[in-house]
Amino acid sequence: MKRSNDQLIADRARLLGPNVATFYEDPVHIVKGEGVWLWDADGRKYLDCYNNVPHVGHCNPRVVEAIHKQASTLNTHTRYLHEGILEYIDRLTGTMDAELSTAILTCTGSEANDIALRMAEAVTGKRGIIATDATYHGNTTLVSQLSRSNIPSVGFGLDKYFNFISAPDSYRNPDPDGSKFAAAVGKKIDELKKSEDGFAALVICPYFLNEGFPDHADGWLKLAAEIVRKAGGLLICDEVQSGFGRTGTHFWAHEKMGVVPDILTLGKPMANGHPVGGVVASAEIMKEFRSGFRYFNTFGGNPVSCAAAMAVLEEIDAKQLVQNAHLVGKYARSRLETLKQKYDAVGDVRGSGLVFGAEMVLDRESKSPAGEFTDRVVNAMRHRSIILSKLGRHKNTLKIRPPMPFSKDNANLLFDTLDDVLAQTPVIP
Amino acid sequence: MKRSNDQLIADRARLLGPNVATFYEDPVHIVKGEGVWLWDADGRKYLDCYNNVPHVGHCNPRVVEAIHKQASTLNTHTRYLHEGILEYIDRLTGTMDAELSTAILTCTGSEANDIALRMAEAVTGKRGIIATDATYHGNTTLVSQLSRSNIPSVGFGLDKYFNFISAPDSYRNPDPDGSKFAAAVGKKIDELKKSEDGFAALVICPYFLNEGFPDHADGWLKLAAEIVRKAGGLLICDEVQSGFGRTGTHFWAHEKMGVVPDILTLGKPMANGHPVGGVVASAEIMKEFRSGFRYFNTFGGNPVSCAAAMAVLEEIDAKQLVQNAHLVGKYARSRLETLKQKYDAVGDVRGSGLVFGAEMVLDRESKSPAGEFTDRVVNAMRHRSIILSKLGRHKNTLKIRPPMPFSKDNANLLFDTLDDVLAQTPVIP
Repeated sequence: MKRSNDQLIADRARLLGPNVATFYEDPVHIVKGEGVWLWDADGRKYLDCYNNVPHVGHCNPRVVEAIHKQASTLNTHTRYLHEGILEYIDRLTGTMDAELSTAILTCTGSEANDIALRMAEAVTGKRGIIATDATYHGNTTLVSQLSRSNIPSVGFGLDKYFNFISAPDSYRNPDPDGSKFAAAVGKKIDELKKSEDGFAALVICPYFLNEGFPDHADGWLKLAAEIVRKAGGLLICDEVQSGFGRTGTHFWAHEKMGVVPDILTLGKPMANGHPVGGVVASAEIMKEFRSGFRYFNTFGGNPVSCAAAMAVLEEIDAKQLVQNAHLVGKYARSRLETLKQKYDAVGDVRGSGLVFGAEMVLDRESKSPAGEFTDRVVNAMRHRSIILSKLGRHKNTLKIRPPMPFSKDNANLLFDTLDDVLAQTPVIP
Repeated sequence: MKRSNDQLIADRARLLGPNVATFYEDPVHIVKGEGVWLWDADGRKYLDCYNNVPHVGHCNPRVVEAIHKQASTLNTHTRYLHEGILEYIDRLTGTMDAELSTAILTCTGSEANDIALRMAEAVTGKRGIIATDATYHGNTTLVSQLSRSNIPSVGFGLDKYFNFISAPDSYRNPDPDGSKFAAAVGKKIDELKKSEDGFAALVICPYFLNEGFPDHADGWLKLAAEIVRKAGGLLICDEVQSGFGRTGTHFWAHEKMGVVPDILTLGKPMANGHPVGGVVASAEIMKEFRSGFRYFNTFGGNPVSCAAAMAVLEEIDAKQLVQNAHLVGKYARSRLETLKQKYDAVGDVRGSGLVFGAEMVLDRESKSPAGEFTDRVVNAMRHRSIILSKLGRHKNTLKIRPPMPFSKDNANLLFDTLDDVLAQTPVIP
C-alpha cells in the first residue's frame, strides 16, 4: 500500500533520524524517471532541471544495460585482474592532459576528496588546506571540514587545518583576470607558511558551482595556479559537478579555466548514479601516496561500476552531449537574459553549457540578495512541475543543472513556466 | 583482444600506480561468476571459498533482477521521498534489538565507520578510540588509522586518537570468559581518562575476523561491554564481515557475543557487491549526531542500492542461508579437525558457520606461526582451482569465508584438495 507523503515524512524521521533534508516545502515523492523526466506517485510528470547525477538521463538504457550485463556476469574487486578497470581508466585519462595518467576508483566523490587531501599531505609534507567559504566537497570526517555552510559539530579537531578565502563573486566584486582571487590565495598561503601546518593544497571546483558559478573568462585560474605551484603546494580540482562536459565548451572545467590540476577528483555523474567516484593524478603523485599506504577500496573499481562508468563516457560521445550542452546552454542563457529585461528581480544571468541560472535581487542597484523570494520561486516552480533549486554565496541563485540530454524544447517549457512564476511572485523587501 | 596476465599487471602499474595488491603470486584473471563458482579468462573453473561480498552467491539472480528493475525505473537520492529506503531500514532493523532503530545508509563500510567514530565523539565529547592491534575498519583518513597492518604514512595527525590493545588469541592466550580482554580494555580506558582526549569508544568486530576469529564462547564480550559503558564510552561493533548470518548461529555476531552495540556498522555483503554500507544506532545517538551535522550522502540509500540490499535480505530468508551456514560450517569444521589429526602443521581449528579456518604452525608445542608455509598452501590451492586466503594476528590462519550458498559438496571438494595440498607441501622451519 502506497504511503501518503505525511506518512513517508513521519517514517523518515523514525528510521533516518532528524535533520535529513528534503527538497521543497512540500517534498516530492518520485517513483519513476526517464531521460529528463520524473514522475511522482500520483502519476504527475516533472521536468528535471536540477539533477546532474543522472548525467546522460534518468534510467539511460545504455547504462542500465551495461549494469545489468556486468552484474549478471561478474562483480568482484581489484585484487583479481580484470580488464574493466583498465579499459575505463585508459579512456577516462585519455580525455585529459597527459600528466593526469593514473587513477584510484572509489565509490563516492567524498572518498575521492578524502584521498586527494592525503595525497597533498604525502607530496608536500604539509597539512594546511585552502578552500573558498561557500563550497562543499563531501561528507567524510576530513572533507566535511571544507564546508562552511554545514559546519560539523564534531570532527576530531581537523578544522584547524582548513583555511577559507572569500568565494569569487563576479556580480558584486568583479575580478576579470582572477588576480584578486590569486592575491587572496597568496595571502592565505603566506599566513600558512608562517604556521606550523604549512601549505599543502588549494581545493576548488574550477567552475565554482556551489559558489554560484561566477562569470569567469576562460583561463581565469591561471594566476591562482601559478601562486599555488610557486609556493610548493598542490592544486586539487574537484570536478564532481563541473566535469564530464557539463560546461559545454570543454570536457573538463579545469581546461576551460586554463589549468591542469595536480589532482582531479570525480564523482556524482561519473556512472549516472551508480556509486562511483575517482581521483586522477600524475604517476609521481600517485606513487608518493601509494608507496606510503596500500589503499584498497572493496567496491571501488569493481567490474559493474566500471561498466556503468564506461557506458556514461560512450553515451556522452554517441549522443554528442557536450555539443548539446553548448547549444542548449547558449539558448537557455538567451532566454534568461530576456527574463532579466522583463523582471527587475533577475539581477545577473550566468552559466556555461548545462549549468546556468540567475541571481535574484531585491533591487539592482544595491544587488541585495533576494533569498526568500528565490525560495518562493523554487517552490512555485515545483508546483508547476519543474524541478530546480538554488545555491550560491547568498543562497539566491537559481541552480539549473539538468541531465545532459536537455533540449531546447525542454528549455522552452522551463522558461515559459519561469516567466509565469516570476510574473506571479511578488518581491517583498 | 584479451590481454595476457603479464600485460594486465603492467597496465595496472601504469594506470593504477604502485602497491595495488593482487591475491596470489600468480594473480587470477576472473571473468565470470555464478553462485560459489568463478571462471578465469582461459575458461578454468574455481571454487570460491573466500569472497564474502557476494554473500548470496556471485551474480545472484534475485539481486541482479532487483538492480535491473530499479535501475530501469528510477535512481535518485534521499532528498526526494521514496519508499525503498524506508522499507529496507524497517526490515534491516527488524532483525536487531529494538534499541537499534535508526540508520544512515552509505556506499561503503569505510564511510559507515567514519560516521560511527563521529557519532561517538558527538555523544561523549571525547576522541580517544580503542581497537585491537590486528584489525581493519576501512580506508578513509580517519578510519585507516585503526589498522596497524597498513599504517598510513599520512593522516593529518589523527593517529594520536587511536589506542591499541592486543588482539584476542584463544590458541596461545586463552581467555575463556573474556575477562583478560575486558581488563585490557579497562586499563586502556584508565589511561585515556587521564589524557586530554578522554575515552570515546571501543571499536571491534565482535567475531574478530581479521584477528583470526579466535574461539570464544557465546557471550564473551559482555564483560568488555560493561566496562565500556561504565566508563561512559560507546561500543561500536563493525559487522562488515561478521554480520548477515555469516556465523550460522545468529544473524549478527554481536548477539552471539552477548551484547547490543551502541553503534553497528555494515558494509561488504550488504548488497552482494553493489556499493552499500550503513550505520545503525539508537534514536538518541542518531539525534546527537545529526543535530550537529546535516550528513548527506548523494548515492547513499538511493533506490537501486536499497533494492539490491533488500534482495539480499529476502534471499537469505528464502534460501535459509543462515541455517545453511550453520550446517555446512559444522561439517567443514569436522573435516578440518580430521586434517588436524593427520597433519602436525594444522595447529588449531576455529570458526563458526561459514567463516572457518585453521592456524598453521611449525610445531604444536611452540605454536610458532608457519606464515610462509601458509602462503605456499594458499598459492598451491589457487593452482588447484580453490580460491582462499589467510589472515590473523600471525598471518598464518587460513581464511575461508565463502558465499553463503556454499554446500557440503563444495566443502568436500575444498577439503579433499586441501588434504592433497597439505600432503605435498613441506613444512620448512
